Amino acid sequence: MAINFANRMNNIKGSAIRELLKLTEEPDIISFAGGLPAPELFPLKELEEVSKRVLREEGQAALQYSTTEGYLPLREKIAQRMSKVKVDCKAKDIIVTSGSQQGLEFSGRVFVNEGDVIICESPSYLGALNAFKAYLPKFVEISMDEDGMIMEELEKALEQNPNAKFIYTIPDFQNPTGRTMSLERRKKLLELAYKYNIPVVEDNPYGELRFEGEILPALKSMDTKGLVIYLGTFSKTFCPGMRIGWVVASPEILSKYVVVKQGADLQCSTIAQREINRFLEMYDLDAHIANIIKVYRKRRDLMLETMEKEFPEGVTFTRPQGGLFTWVTFPAHLDAAEIMQKSIQEKVAFVPGQSFFPGEQFKNHGRFNYSNMPEDKIVEGIKRLAKVLKSL
Amino acid sequence: MAINFANRMNNIKGSAIRELLKLTEEPDIISFAGGLPAPELFPLKELEEVSKRVLREEGQAALQYSTTEGYLPLREKIAQRMSKVKVDCKAKDIIVTSGSQQGLEFSGRVFVNEGDVIICESPSYLGALNAFKAYLPKFVEISMDEDGMIMEELEKALEQNPNAKFIYTIPDFQNPTGRTMSLERRKKLLELAYKYNIPVVEDNPYGELRFEGEILPALKSMDTKGLVIYLGTFSKTFCPGMRIGWVVASPEILSKYVVVKQGADLQCSTIAQREINRFLEMYDLDAHIANIIKVYRKRRDLMLETMEKEFPEGVTFTRPQGGLFTWVTFPAHLDAAEIMQKSIQEKVAFVPGQSFFPGEQFKNHGRFNYSNMPEDKIVEGIKRLAKVLKSL
Repeated sequence: MAINFANRMNNIKGSAIRELLKLTEEPDIISFAGGLPAPELFPLKELEEVSKRVLREEGQAALQYSTTEGYLPLREKIAQRMSKVKVDCKAKDIIVTSGSQQGLEFSGRVFVNEGDVIICESPSYLGALNAFKAYLPKFVEISMDEDGMIMEELEKALEQNPNAKFIYTIPDFQNPTGRTMSLERRKKLLELAYKYNIPVVEDNPYGELRFEGEILPALKSMDTKGLVIYLGTFSKTFCPGMRIGWVVASPEILSKYVVVKQGADLQCSTIAQREINRFLEMYDLDAHIANIIKVYRKRRDLMLETMEKEFPEGVTFTRPQGGLFTWVTFPAHLDAAEIMQKSIQEKVAFVPGQSFFPGEQFKNHGRFNYSNMPEDKIVEGIKRLAKVLKSL
Repeated sequence: MAINFANRMNNIKGSAIRELLKLTEEPDIISFAGGLPAPELFPLKELEEVSKRVLREEGQAALQYSTTEGYLPLREKIAQRMSKVKVDCKAKDIIVTSGSQQGLEFSGRVFVNEGDVIICESPSYLGALNAFKAYLPKFVEISMDEDGMIMEELEKALEQNPNAKFIYTIPDFQNPTGRTMSLERRKKLLELAYKYNIPVVEDNPYGELRFEGEILPALKSMDTKGLVIYLGTFSKTFCPGMRIGWVVASPEILSKYVVVKQGADLQCSTIAQREINRFLEMYDLDAHIANIIKVYRKRRDLMLETMEKEFPEGVTFTRPQGGLFTWVTFPAHLDAAEIMQKSIQEKVAFVPGQSFFPGEQFKNHGRFNYSNMPEDKIVEGIKRLAKVLKSL
């Protein structure tokens, strides 16, 4: 007899990216598919020292249960670090989550009834879309240009969808497009959020990885009405393997995330929180980030230069000022999934853009990651892909 | 203007236990309230060695993203360890979760539509009830005796509730009662599950901590139809601070947990999984567990002896053969919450039983943990409580 699952299970499938990651684990694949940081930059020696000290000096507490909100000294340090994106907050405004992914999933759970609308960028991060889908929402997508969401479209969407529950945005070096929302648009977005009394989920995993220009103030930094929920993470600035991120929100909203966290998994890893806290005490994370930026900037330059030189006419791509991804647009008659099938035969992988669109799945795009591959492989991989493109 | 949360948020509140834990963090409190293992038994030196080796020998992989299902060598070792509860399974049957709490929450998400029925023991683990509540179920409670759920009641509940989605049970040293389901009842429960084609969520965080007698076979070990979902954890046998548990289920069911895990937080901590894997390679977890059992058995003995000696007539308690808790029943006219208020003035804490009942909240019970306090504090704490009880 068939097993009777919840209706929501019909709505969620495995992420195409995660399935791809499995394919691309073979060591001879040049993969631009994942969103992986460069592992050769992980501070292994420092972590060894940190881990030793935590176990020796606070080992019993580090392996025990702890509070749902997270380790207080870490939350204090996160609050201080929020000044980088101009947010003025305190430990009490923060809950530690299992990466920013958990903050996304919680946002769905806290706000969305079946049939409610989530407003998002088009395209948008597919891991967020998948997390939200468990709550059976409708997505209303807002087109973007080089300055982010187009505000006229956003206002129309807000007018037409009084049951919209939140606006989901990645203002800095968006996943998958690499685009950054301009300051003017940020202000306008907040103005609209206030007008329509709608929360904003601001997802900022890459904001500190800016290669040039000034860091723009987070939406949260300009939020005078407590409607912005800010999601941060150490995954891209430190390491993803520890699964430590955070949510900053106003007290009423944050208290909902806390009860949801209790039910979800009680708390994040106590020892991971204490290790990151020690690292922040003992070492200079900003110097570490400066080093990551140097490496990624070079890789981005190399990827864009090689695309410029090698890709056939009619293929365009974005020029991200930071983060991990560029978004490639192929000629309209090509299907990125078919390109990927051919390129994987040449041992080169990327993510076909289809799955980043919750509605009409535009087929002629691809997301390319430049943070994870060394320079020679970036050049070689783009060259191979250029050959595939020329053959089509 | 008010913020418009999802309806489910009206149904979930903070766990009374987690709130209590905050109160009981003051060092002079003798706390029988939490479900905390004894921190002085955590293998700190071994972990220091393990952590060093993992960072030196596989550091880059240990800090990177990995697969949603979990680290394969760890899943292989978990599969082997499942033979302790007589379950024959392979790595492919297992997904690693953030403690067994996450497996509970996923069970709600995978199976429950609003208004569906969850059948559970009365009383039951309140962390599970809270996790399930996010999916707006109805609970149907089954009374217990010393051998666990009463099967005649269970059959009646299954007959009367065709929209029941799963049976939730903790067969070994149940939380909060400390009771163990007899072998005969286990067989009957499975027979009923097959007859009514209903999945069974078997939550077994304490099964390996048996102080006397034989480990009973898990429900999962006798499950020929793939209807049992087994939840395990390292929280009580190793440490809770790393948040590593697991789910064992048949392929169709497990695949649902995997997509849910992707959306929830992508994966568990890579480094925690690799550290536990290394620990299992380098050290003898069974010897470590034997040591935990020795200590907890003595603490249980001491708590029960002292209760026997000091508590006034009319107070009864269960005699668990393992695990972390005994369940105290006060005279019917007393309210455990009021007893707790008085006992906290005497610096002794326990959990009033009310919140372990999803329906009618019987007031004259309390859950007492004996694993976390040293022997002298157990004696002192029970004596102080006895005084409070005598004064009422």
